[in-house]
Amino acid sequence: MKQETIDRIRRFSEERDWDQFHSPSNLAKSIVIEAAELLECFQWDDDNYDIEHIKEELADVIVYSQNLLDKLGLDVDEIVNAKMSQNEAKYPVDKAKGKADKYDKL
Amino acid sequence: MKQETIDRIRRFSEERDWDQFHSPSNLAKSIVIEAAELLECFQWDDDNYDIEHIKEELADVIVYSQNLLDKLGLDVDEIVNAKMSQNEAKYPVDKAKGKADKYDKL
Amino acid sequence: MKQETIDRIRRFSEERDWDQFHSPSNLAKSIVIEAAELLECFQWDDDNYDIEHIKEELADVIVYSQNLLDKLGLDVDEIVNAKMSQNEAKYPVDKAKGKADKYDKL
Amino acid sequence: MKQETIDRIRRFSEERDWDQFHSPSNLAKSIVIEAAELLECFQWDDDNYDIEHIKEELADVIVYSQNLLDKLGLDVDEIVNAKMSQNEAKYPVDKAKGKADKYDKL
Repeated sequence: MKQETIDRIRRFSEERDWDQFHSPSNLAKSIVIEAAELLECFQWDDDNYDIEHIKEELADVIVYSQNLLDKLGLDVDEIVNAKMSQNEAKYPVDKAKGKADKYDKL
Repeated sequence: MKQETIDRIRRFSEERDWDQFHSPSNLAKSIVIEAAELLECFQWDDDNYDIEHIKEELADVIVYSQNLLDKLGLDVDEIVNAKMSQNEAKYPVDKAKGKADKYDKL
Repeated sequence: MKQETIDRIRRFSEERDWDQFHSPSNLAKSIVIEAAELLECFQWDDDNYDIEHIKEELADVIVYSQNLLDKLGLDVDEIVNAKMSQNEAKYPVDKAKGKADKYDKL
Repeated sequence: MKQETIDRIRRFSEERDWDQFHSPSNLAKSIVIEAAELLECFQWDDDNYDIEHIKEELADVIVYSQNLLDKLGLDVDEIVNAKMSQNEAKYPVDKAKGKADKYDKL
């Protein structure tokens, strides 16, 4: 995400004085609520979906994720790279290739 | 997120031939599953949380969100800015300031 | 659910003095957390699932739903019948038959 | 839940020919979607909630849980009692009393 998009997200909350509602716990609730609205786009049909609706709900997930990063003072590249290192260790290419099994079943 | 972090996420799936599992519907399920694991960090206590655990679960949400952006060929800045325009219109500063009400109750 | 099963659920919490953790909000979080674990049984494959795992996760959803009914003093038959009356009005048989559309699109 | 309430839930789907949409996977999605709508009642405030809204969303969770029990031919008392036996073993009263820790941290 570009810095100006991140700044727009931050300014939106600041201007409305919403930081008071953005406890880490409330933001975690908000992420799961929006993620479920995203899933609702596929509730009865996996293949025929409303792409405009998906864009809105996925954007909501991303915005609240940015809010939580900000609230906790986290760096997105740092936490994602740390997790990718874990994932790469748990799912070695030669064992995981082409399989959807969980790491403890590989 | 830096381009090299995004590239690492993409390479991870490509090397494991996991694109076959990454249907939009499966990725939407995955986002909500990880979002609920993030929420679990706050299940019984809103204020005392394991920050290391939160970092991992939030990273998972972000990684699957990136996977879904990629799968659907979406541009993160475009969809987030479009949604922020909607949010700014639905929650005018003078009506929404300091209130957590939904837009239809403002 | 039989009365003796409901009683067992209640006794389990009482004996452990867990009512203090069972705020309505925490129980709502718990229901969504367990529902996402249930969904995880279908994360990458809709058709090949571990029925024993599903039984456990669905039971968790039902147990926390009973906890929330108890916490709020709600009668399950009353709330379900009230909702079914709404559903029957929103989805008339002649309009909704064989269609998965939401009521506002029928 | 009374047998007549369960019968009403079943009749509702049968009359609308909705069994075709009620795959186990779609019902699992539906449970998490409704559970997140229930959580939304507590999104920004744990203590001031709209009880009528909660009743509707909790009823939705219970209705879809009943649909999934039916779809998979499961007996609610059997699966709940099996899970309660597990819970009682994992959380012995003397260790778990008054604590919200997960069993592997007791």
